[in-house]
Amino acid sequence: MRARLDISDFVARSIGGWRSQRSVHHLAFAHFEQVNSTIVVSAISPTDQRVIELCQTYRFDPDRVVAPFQMTWNGESDWDGEISKGETVLVPIPTGDYQGKLLRDQGYAETIPAVGEYYFTEDDSFVLTTSYDRAAAEEKIWFVNDNVRCRVSLIKTSGGSGVVTASFSSEIRQNEP
Amino acid sequence: MRARLDISDFVARSIGGWRSQRSVHHLAFAHFEQVNSTIVVSAISPTDQRVIELCQTYRFDPDRVVAPFQMTWNGESDWDGEISKGETVLVPIPTGDYQGKLLRDQGYAETIPAVGEYYFTEDDSFVLTTSYDRAAAEEKIWFVNDNVRCRVSLIKTSGGSGVVTASFSSEIRQNEP
Repeated sequence: MRARLDISDFVARSIGGWRSQRSVHHLAFAHFEQVNSTIVVSAISPTDQRVIELCQTYRFDPDRVVAPFQMTWNGESDWDGEISKGETVLVPIPTGDYQGKLLRDQGYAETIPAVGEYYFTEDDSFVLTTSYDRAAAEEKIWFVNDNVRCRVSLIKTSGGSGVVTASFSSEIRQNEP
Repeated sequence: MRARLDISDFVARSIGGWRSQRSVHHLAFAHFEQVNSTIVVSAISPTDQRVIELCQTYRFDPDRVVAPFQMTWNGESDWDGEISKGETVLVPIPTGDYQGKLLRDQGYAETIPAVGEYYFTEDDSFVLTTSYDRAAAEEKIWFVNDNVRCRVSLIKTSGGSGVVTASFSSEIRQNEP
């Protein structure tokens, strides 16, 4: 039996440049939004100052950090034509073989630091849930093959029962320059 | 520990009318297609003539059938403005608690009868793979709650390695009339 994906494998497979097509479904008014973007995932050092600071903010021992990484993105939405650019540092803190905390210095649903809970399903999907003051985000990411990954993100009301937006990204690995 | 979803539960939760927002990503040329549709899922009798005929076509004993159902859909794409209407009969033949065959009289990727293989993941996603002459389809469906379900469909080259289209549907239960 093959080994299940863990956070180190998942980050290793994610390193690189990706071209992303993202569709956002605003469910209440059946609106479609389309976003084209490029995403770059890079490994960073566990001793990077930003990693240490996130650990201090959330009171985790930096020795527990595994495979920290950063993501930068540059996208354009067809809704408002706005260019969205950003960068976030993500710091996994495993609490088991296939689960843990994910610290980040900027969330998706609200632009504040956040701590999410992740786990891997037995079929190698990475599932991340993050609770914010007024919303909860649930994200599921899986690799179709080495060069294609899918991501489904749900933004729910803070109680968790209602779904506000559902979005889907297909991400294709870009050739190295 | 709660019971895992099986095919009877899955079909029971699916019965009803759904409003679907579907985004199709044509990966090779980064095209977005949007489809609004209504879907109705209805239980049918295991002794329905269409069920019996599908069993005969694929040489399965009709006594093995569990929870057969039909789906009708009526959708409009923004790509060609074409109205897509259809109806298909789906016949599950369990081969284990959480896996089996799914016979249908019309496939998604090609409009011919097809036999797919399904299984449920431990986190209650229904996964269906169907091989056609020139393509393979992989579909993953899961319930976010009783009134929202998500569906990701991948159309792959028949070898299975390349992904041609990736599509995502968010489906909201419609109130009964």
